Amino acid sequence: MNETMIGYRPIGVIYSQHCVAEETPIQPAYAAGCPGRVEVFPEFAEGLRDLEGFSHIYLLYHFHCVEEAQLLVKPYLQDAERGVFATRAPCRPNAIGLSVVELVRREGRVLHLEGVDILDGTPLLDIKPYTAKFDFLKTTRNGWQDDVDEPTAHERGLRNFRPGDKR
Amino acid sequence: MNETMIGYRPIGVIYSQHCVAEETPIQPAYAAGCPGRVEVFPEFAEGLRDLEGFSHIYLLYHFHCVEEAQLLVKPYLQDAERGVFATRAPCRPNAIGLSVVELVRREGRVLHLEGVDILDGTPLLDIKPYTAKFDFLKTTRNGWQDDVDEPTAHERGLRNFRPGDKR
Repeated sequence: MNETMIGYRPIGVIYSQHCVAEETPIQPAYAAGCPGRVEVFPEFAEGLRDLEGFSHIYLLYHFHCVEEAQLLVKPYLQDAERGVFATRAPCRPNAIGLSVVELVRREGRVLHLEGVDILDGTPLLDIKPYTAKFDFLKTTRNGWQDDVDEPTAHERGLRNFRPGDKR
Repeated sequence: MNETMIGYRPIGVIYSQHCVAEETPIQPAYAAGCPGRVEVFPEFAEGLRDLEGFSHIYLLYHFHCVEEAQLLVKPYLQDAERGVFATRAPCRPNAIGLSVVELVRREGRVLHLEGVDILDGTPLLDIKPYTAKFDFLKTTRNGWQDDVDEPTAHERGLRNFRPGDKR
């Protein structure tokens, strides 16, 4: 069963000001003020109809710069080894990234975004609307993240990115 | 660029009581009381460490029963044609599904879940923790979904599934 290979093709490209992995914020929560855009390939443009009605969207993408999967990782926010599925680290068995970003506006097949924590040139796999009805859930436990205080998370979450940097 | 093929291999299988696509709730929001489980393949088991600390997790999976992608679809909740990327419909160019489910408990490489809207036997691609810090966002616009009243959404969201059905 796990020999089955599932193949996907990029539907577009994500562009951002983040050109170096080590200087890319780890989550949109730490990427306030980081604009970016998606350019969907012409053959998929029709699928974007009505997307502009949503203030937030999920981007699913391929971590194209990751070299090797690891099952145990030290998350960026904490010096402790965790199972990779209990983190959002890129070095996953299937290197699929997930970010919820703000959709500022759509111009044809170009999406203008805000809060982009994604490396420039990343291949896009899918777009889904983020909606209060489905995605705004009350968690009762946030695992090891509950142990990370907010100032530390903010400092580490930015990585080497300094808001206001001109690039 | 869009000729590049990206290959992923399943990391496990999702099991549920939903054996027929037409009787599967369309979102966890309409799958209250639907248990399910994930069995991660032994070679990935180590990556689950610490996952049990989280009350909710994202499952990313392959819609393995979908036949053909469509760019315009009528969402289950509404009789109007929408761009597929403005919906969560399965017939997407890359048939990747995303559900936020409740993690009841972990037993080794088996995850016991609640609120499962996923077809039995679905190949699992990735697991990520859902956390208040990253994923609990205040939307300002929810697109066409804002036009669907809650009783209609609930009725349609269940599809032909009737909670309490013995299967």
